[in-house]
Amino acid sequence: MVILDGKKVSESILYEISLRIQELKGEGKRLPRLDMILVGNDYGSIKYVEMKRKTVRQVGMLGEVHHLDESIETEGLLDLTESLNNNPEVDGYMIQLPLPSHINKHTVLESIDPKKDIDGLSPSNLGKLFQKDRTGIPPATPVGIIKLLEEYNIKLLGRRVVILGASSIIGKPLAAMMLEKSATVTICNSNTLNTQDIARTADILVSATGKPELIKGSFLKLGCVVVDVGSNKHSETGKLVGDVDWESIQGIPSHITPVPGGVGPMTIASLILNLMHCYENRNR
Amino acid sequence: MVILDGKKVSESILYEISLRIQELKGEGKRLPRLDMILVGNDYGSIKYVEMKRKTVRQVGMLGEVHHLDESIETEGLLDLTESLNNNPEVDGYMIQLPLPSHINKHTVLESIDPKKDIDGLSPSNLGKLFQKDRTGIPPATPVGIIKLLEEYNIKLLGRRVVILGASSIIGKPLAAMMLEKSATVTICNSNTLNTQDIARTADILVSATGKPELIKGSFLKLGCVVVDVGSNKHSETGKLVGDVDWESIQGIPSHITPVPGGVGPMTIASLILNLMHCYENRNR
Repeated sequence: MVILDGKKVSESILYEISLRIQELKGEGKRLPRLDMILVGNDYGSIKYVEMKRKTVRQVGMLGEVHHLDESIETEGLLDLTESLNNNPEVDGYMIQLPLPSHINKHTVLESIDPKKDIDGLSPSNLGKLFQKDRTGIPPATPVGIIKLLEEYNIKLLGRRVVILGASSIIGKPLAAMMLEKSATVTICNSNTLNTQDIARTADILVSATGKPELIKGSFLKLGCVVVDVGSNKHSETGKLVGDVDWESIQGIPSHITPVPGGVGPMTIASLILNLMHCYENRNR
Repeated sequence: MVILDGKKVSESILYEISLRIQELKGEGKRLPRLDMILVGNDYGSIKYVEMKRKTVRQVGMLGEVHHLDESIETEGLLDLTESLNNNPEVDGYMIQLPLPSHINKHTVLESIDPKKDIDGLSPSNLGKLFQKDRTGIPPATPVGIIKLLEEYNIKLLGRRVVILGASSIIGKPLAAMMLEKSATVTICNSNTLNTQDIARTADILVSATGKPELIKGSFLKLGCVVVDVGSNKHSETGKLVGDVDWESIQGIPSHITPVPGGVGPMTIASLILNLMHCYENRNR
């Protein structure tokens, strides 16, 4: 059972970016800047933003966190996105989801300048993804997953992929990216009947359900690849765990992503990589 | 075997729209206008545009066909989309695909004002579809298919859908719309292995392959629903045929769309319906 080591792969991506930034510094150039918008005090969201901010600093980029009160209205958030869109110092920014329910998420995502939308979540970037239009910015998590599979020479052409979870951030864009690589893709949701039987048809199983220990050995075909996008707090230990029940799956898959250290760090690296592309495009 | 009568259902949609337009006429209001852009002399494209133009006139709408020479460059097409975007008389317009290969399709589709994009093919409308953002305009063919299934009370929740063909005009947006209705969706492409076996798992099989007589009885589960999006010229008779081999499938599906008279007329009706929504939104 090969561990798909997202930590190691992401570090190699980040190292190359840090070398490029040192170069820019040496040349006296303006440094890339990645801003983050955080609304409210959700524990998970604060943790994620902290991790991203730390990585931004470690690679040598600039970046500011705009931490807004839970009570902010849609209009207030639109003022901020407008000012970031217009700020020539900011190469890209992201809004940590979920937003509080009183905020119109669609309006806010649509207000992001697609050229600065490093999370790839504005409608126009998502739409370009589905049209195979390379001028768009792809969403960070799916990009990270594809890159990790490529790093381990896991081919997608003609293979059966099953994705558990049909979100617009992970499941649907990942499906589009895998279809583009000529995989056969099935997307399941919480209303799917016989999820276990469908999962067992997968050469590559992607689980993004947020249900700890859902994926047992009985969900897996022998020799399949398991990508665990779960990011759950274990109810007893409080530790970060994925969707896979590790005890139960021993010896069945050929490859698997661990949690932590799999998809998570690849997502952050992809975000930083997207920012570098925005920076380079602006300075072209 | 129930025939999903797209002709009949579309006529009832168009009839309601024609009544609304009579009303507008009676009130002395500006009439809705749907323009079409046609490039070159592809036989199929000319036929489609003629059918749409005829329907536009029959329901009482205004509309103009901009028939451009095959040799037009991307820039020339962008001038036209800009002028249609800025023309207050035009409520919406569509570009007949495919475009000649020397034209940058992505740039052209992106230049359509999303509020006038009645085919739902600009990146921002496609992206909104994947985000369940209701402010977007959905692509006409998938809307037509969903409406036809609804008309015959065919439920999607928890059902297995298999879509043959992963295009950005039909396969992918249709998958997103069916996922939103909580179906479990598999998308196959030309690299899929065992397409027949996968097709046979479908409660609802959608074929958009453009291969006449591909779908034999051996592709179908007893009692399934077959949606035939094929629109092919029969090699001997020259007649319009779909992807289904009718002789071979007799007695197997519970419901099936005919060609012609199934998805085709529903697509045109959906286009006209999208135009009416654009018109009503502008006059709100």
